[in-house]
Amino acid sequence: MTHDPLGASARADGRADDELRQVRFTRGWLDHAAGSVLVEFGRTRVLCAASASEGVPRWRKGSGLGWVTAEYAMLPAATNTRSDRESVKGRIGGRTHEISRLIGRSLRAVIDYRALGENTIQLDCDVLQADGGTRTAAITGAYVALADAVAALRATGALTGEPLTGSVAAVSVGIIDGVPRLDLPYEEDVRAETDMNVVMTGAGSFVEVQGTAEGAPFDRRELDALLGLAEKGCQDLTRLQQEALAGE
Amino acid sequence: MTHDPLGASARADGRADDELRQVRFTRGWLDHAAGSVLVEFGRTRVLCAASASEGVPRWRKGSGLGWVTAEYAMLPAATNTRSDRESVKGRIGGRTHEISRLIGRSLRAVIDYRALGENTIQLDCDVLQADGGTRTAAITGAYVALADAVAALRATGALTGEPLTGSVAAVSVGIIDGVPRLDLPYEEDVRAETDMNVVMTGAGSFVEVQGTAEGAPFDRRELDALLGLAEKGCQDLTRLQQEALAGE
Amino acid sequence: MTHDPLGASARADGRADDELRQVRFTRGWLDHAAGSVLVEFGRTRVLCAASASEGVPRWRKGSGLGWVTAEYAMLPAATNTRSDRESVKGRIGGRTHEISRLIGRSLRAVIDYRALGENTIQLDCDVLQADGGTRTAAITGAYVALADAVAALRATGALTGEPLTGSVAAVSVGIIDGVPRLDLPYEEDVRAETDMNVVMTGAGSFVEVQGTAEGAPFDRRELDALLGLAEKGCQDLTRLQQEALAGE
Amino acid sequence: MTHDPLGASARADGRADDELRQVRFTRGWLDHAAGSVLVEFGRTRVLCAASASEGVPRWRKGSGLGWVTAEYAMLPAATNTRSDRESVKGRIGGRTHEISRLIGRSLRAVIDYRALGENTIQLDCDVLQADGGTRTAAITGAYVALADAVAALRATGALTGEPLTGSVAAVSVGIIDGVPRLDLPYEEDVRAETDMNVVMTGAGSFVEVQGTAEGAPFDRRELDALLGLAEKGCQDLTRLQQEALAGE
Amino acid sequence: MTHDPLGASARADGRADDELRQVRFTRGWLDHAAGSVLVEFGRTRVLCAASASEGVPRWRKGSGLGWVTAEYAMLPAATNTRSDRESVKGRIGGRTHEISRLIGRSLRAVIDYRALGENTIQLDCDVLQADGGTRTAAITGAYVALADAVAALRATGALTGEPLTGSVAAVSVGIIDGVPRLDLPYEEDVRAETDMNVVMTGAGSFVEVQGTAEGAPFDRRELDALLGLAEKGCQDLTRLQQEALAGE
Amino acid sequence: MTHDPLGASARADGRADDELRQVRFTRGWLDHAAGSVLVEFGRTRVLCAASASEGVPRWRKGSGLGWVTAEYAMLPAATNTRSDRESVKGRIGGRTHEISRLIGRSLRAVIDYRALGENTIQLDCDVLQADGGTRTAAITGAYVALADAVAALRATGALTGEPLTGSVAAVSVGIIDGVPRLDLPYEEDVRAETDMNVVMTGAGSFVEVQGTAEGAPFDRRELDALLGLAEKGCQDLTRLQQEALAGE
Repeated sequence: MTHDPLGASARADGRADDELRQVRFTRGWLDHAAGSVLVEFGRTRVLCAASASEGVPRWRKGSGLGWVTAEYAMLPAATNTRSDRESVKGRIGGRTHEISRLIGRSLRAVIDYRALGENTIQLDCDVLQADGGTRTAAITGAYVALADAVAALRATGALTGEPLTGSVAAVSVGIIDGVPRLDLPYEEDVRAETDMNVVMTGAGSFVEVQGTAEGAPFDRRELDALLGLAEKGCQDLTRLQQEALAGE
Repeated sequence: MTHDPLGASARADGRADDELRQVRFTRGWLDHAAGSVLVEFGRTRVLCAASASEGVPRWRKGSGLGWVTAEYAMLPAATNTRSDRESVKGRIGGRTHEISRLIGRSLRAVIDYRALGENTIQLDCDVLQADGGTRTAAITGAYVALADAVAALRATGALTGEPLTGSVAAVSVGIIDGVPRLDLPYEEDVRAETDMNVVMTGAGSFVEVQGTAEGAPFDRRELDALLGLAEKGCQDLTRLQQEALAGE
Repeated sequence: MTHDPLGASARADGRADDELRQVRFTRGWLDHAAGSVLVEFGRTRVLCAASASEGVPRWRKGSGLGWVTAEYAMLPAATNTRSDRESVKGRIGGRTHEISRLIGRSLRAVIDYRALGENTIQLDCDVLQADGGTRTAAITGAYVALADAVAALRATGALTGEPLTGSVAAVSVGIIDGVPRLDLPYEEDVRAETDMNVVMTGAGSFVEVQGTAEGAPFDRRELDALLGLAEKGCQDLTRLQQEALAGE
Repeated sequence: MTHDPLGASARADGRADDELRQVRFTRGWLDHAAGSVLVEFGRTRVLCAASASEGVPRWRKGSGLGWVTAEYAMLPAATNTRSDRESVKGRIGGRTHEISRLIGRSLRAVIDYRALGENTIQLDCDVLQADGGTRTAAITGAYVALADAVAALRATGALTGEPLTGSVAAVSVGIIDGVPRLDLPYEEDVRAETDMNVVMTGAGSFVEVQGTAEGAPFDRRELDALLGLAEKGCQDLTRLQQEALAGE
Repeated sequence: MTHDPLGASARADGRADDELRQVRFTRGWLDHAAGSVLVEFGRTRVLCAASASEGVPRWRKGSGLGWVTAEYAMLPAATNTRSDRESVKGRIGGRTHEISRLIGRSLRAVIDYRALGENTIQLDCDVLQADGGTRTAAITGAYVALADAVAALRATGALTGEPLTGSVAAVSVGIIDGVPRLDLPYEEDVRAETDMNVVMTGAGSFVEVQGTAEGAPFDRRELDALLGLAEKGCQDLTRLQQEALAGE
Repeated sequence: MTHDPLGASARADGRADDELRQVRFTRGWLDHAAGSVLVEFGRTRVLCAASASEGVPRWRKGSGLGWVTAEYAMLPAATNTRSDRESVKGRIGGRTHEISRLIGRSLRAVIDYRALGENTIQLDCDVLQADGGTRTAAITGAYVALADAVAALRATGALTGEPLTGSVAAVSVGIIDGVPRLDLPYEEDVRAETDMNVVMTGAGSFVEVQGTAEGAPFDRRELDALLGLAEKGCQDLTRLQQEALAGE
């Protein structure tokens, strides 16, 4: 880990290495979904919608347990260079599959299926604009949409118990020019030697840790540094989620 | 055509029968696309992005002519009841195909392919929220995104001539309880006996007329009344497009 | 609309501008379908089959209402240059989808769902040879096949009421070299500045009006001229349908 | 092989056991294809079209050799009970694949690729009505369409040599109630214990032999009897093809 | 049929013309499947697994009859040059379909559906390495896996009767340089003028005969010679199957 | 983390908590692939084949750089209950996509693209039998197949430099009943509260860390314990890989 003490570490947007981009939650962005939020991590912009429906998938019927699932997608013009629609290609790519599954697992980590009853909540996370960290923004925003949906269901009496056992937030961390940094925008992401996405509960436990050596493999010391940064970032995001949900 | 002179004609949102919903264009909504606009017709909200690229499809190579095409899609949570993703279903539905083709044809009606040169402009119209008239909002907004993209290409010198030969706008009209009305929201659309989408140039000519008897077939007099309403609506939209493009 | 009074208006096949091509209905072309007809508009040849089955699609079950739907397709060798099979490509194109939907809507305009009961009639319109106007020939022929199927079901007692509330026919009209013409063959269709397909009931009301400016946009006067021509053409087709159905 | 000498062997349509159904070739059924024929084996009706194009598939480019290929399909209403379209299902079934491949192989058996040059002839065999033996009718008719296409190409000078080295015809044979029979209609086909399709050249050699025990396995003596019947049937078909091609 | 009495007929692996390659059955190769066998015909290696499950496909429910079906596939690296995965291509090729259907039909020829009851046995034949004759090895091995599965079901009492009415084996034969040969490896297969796959019961009856003229059409005498060779080969395979099943 | 000091921690197969299952590499299992190995982690059995070809994917052409990619798949009968083929379903599932991508990334971590030149090595990892840890066995075996393929290419002079910059191995770790354990078989995997797959280089650096809370989220102390176990396991696997590659 070579660290240039002068300028290499200075980030293009002037942030400290352990500082999040500006995070914004706009709740109730849609009229129809039970919960919806437009979440922004800097210029990354993801529309998260939570749709509730009675019943569960066939393999779960009669169990008395609910289900939470998620789908992630990116609009064609979200990225620097337009990307083709997966609906037009007729198949969903591996990256999309992978992220949809990650979001679903992350949210299910804070769900009490029994309290949810045989209801399904479907999260749709559509990236309107991508500037790095779309999957972590999606998870962080989806939790807020989910919380709003649950509150709405409880308000109408459709739910009596509390299916949420906690909160989840997610952040990316990486090593750029030998320096561990929090919440990478696209220009840092493509230059990162190592890239890690970490999902944590509001209580500070880990739900998912996904680290990848994009360039050189990383050693245990670097891994520890990244985990520390991610813990800090998720703590900050948890606080911002709470503030957003407290507002009306 | 039975017309209740008292209350049947009163619209739920208080508009006159020949009055548009509130129409709003937010230009430059995306950072990457050459032109982009979030267009709103009341609660219908469509994100229109115009991406420019050098080259044309294979069948047009070497012709010296450009190409303009469009894709329309709807986010799953845009509608009252969540709809499944076409990427997940692995195939694009007939309605989506139909509307994508309509938008493309409508924009091409005001394009001088030779002035465009061998460049392609791809319009993406993604419905973020649907409350009736999504295809007409998409066409109307796509024109503004297209005009911005053309201006950007001319500013950078990528284009020297003027590929736009005019403007296009589109509006829906329909007969509800025997009364012809302009710009139908969802609740009127589902009750309409006849439903027509009309695309016109800013100069007042017709580009597309698509009328469908949803309930009872319609006679020539009703058809004439609808065409008159649509002419009025497209005139209004043309003025709003001009104002939006004049602002900076 | 510049009109060459001498020769430009003369049609290659010698028809008057408001004259149909030779239209022929060969009923009972298939042994298995409840109703079937080979319809010919000049060299355009479409095989229309109406298959009846008990039951309705899932979303309609228990309603007491029937259903009528249609699929349109073209054989690979039907056109000038062989076209690839959609089954081989693994997906149905936008044009096919669009026309299938149009045929279905047109026929449903003259169906009394309640009199049909929970039965489904499926129309298959397969273009054996294409020379312009395949969708309008398909609608016009499908009505005859549908009428035969209904008669067959009534003859066997499978139906007691009369699900047909009228008849439908369709024709194409267009402006070629400034002259409005009825029932365009392929060579006129590709040269048309404006192209319109009109579906009407036998009683003279409009079911669908689909006009497209292929070249220059059209004005209201041209639109009115085309609608007039189409009314004349549909009247003629209605008479021919009646004669065909009267024969045995 | 138990053989009822009295009535079991009598065929519903009165034919002798070694007699073909009425076979009819209507040449030039389509205007566009280089060769086309509507072939009928009794009530089985297959439209065979041969489309010629310059060039060959990528894997054959530069070889100086031509290519002949075939696609078989069935219209939805061709059968007793309507079958779903493979284009709508989005995939081609195993049976369709199998038959398309069989037709292509059969025709290629009488093609001199070098004399064909780098040209492709595509055979489309679309079953308009099915009453057993559709694949053998398709092969028999496709040969006639191919011969017409070759003649047309030679007439225009597109071909100078003679790519046809012979003719092919095909017929089905089977054992019904212990009796070997030629050219099975549907009602015999479903009752056959053993079913065999045989493709032969006009010179009396075998191109394909495909025998299947539908019920009980068959012994060598039965196999020999079936092969003998098939030889007789292919001879008859070869003569009918020659007569059809001799006519104008 | 020109036969070089000196060396042309000598096979690369030294076998006599009517001699099988070394055939090996390794039973119980998998832990989970009810029956499984790794079958080798020389260097051709196919893993055959028989999975049993209660119930039958929907169209057979309530009939009291069982079902046996098969799927054939080839690993990408099984062949000389790596072939693409059909799962990645998103569609199953015609050859795969054809062989899967052949295996299923062959096994069903020795099944008493009533004794099987409403149970399904699914055979999976995955070619791990291909050196000619994969479909015949698959059938021959699948029979052994099926016999083991049936024995296992009877041992657990899941089956009481005996659903197997006999055994099946299959072998390829072909004419190379005018000489009929048994059990062709890849290098002979590609050079064969005629190629035939024959499936027979252990009792010596034919289940399937599939002969194809790859090069020149074949006459009746050649056909007879090939059938004779195949009878000999299937007899040998039947004995080897019995020995394998007798072992423990 | 509650740890029963007596019996809960005892593993069903008698291993110590930090002990691998029996690992076996059978090199040269296939004749055609440049490198191939059957790798076994206990009863998990994966066939890994490395196929080399000249050239690289289109997006990499002319770069002078090579490419390494991987596909993972599971035979239908590999698991307890037969699973459907992805080729038959017509689409690859998210899990398969995810693992294929993981294997590819892991191997690319030890590749010097420049030394590989414009060549592609395709790894195919087909699970013949699954008993937990299939993806980690696949990575570990694929490295051995890759090393053999590279050696073969160097032996033939197709490669002159050394494209391998190190080795990779992978192992699963998890917490079962509060106890961290190495290399989980299926029965432990389904009971694990936390499940982690770790890919490391032979030099002891991390390539991938993928941890998932299947049950309760995990804290930093548990995460550290799992990472320690994984480091131990990968060290052992590296040694076994070296021994396998040293043998002949």
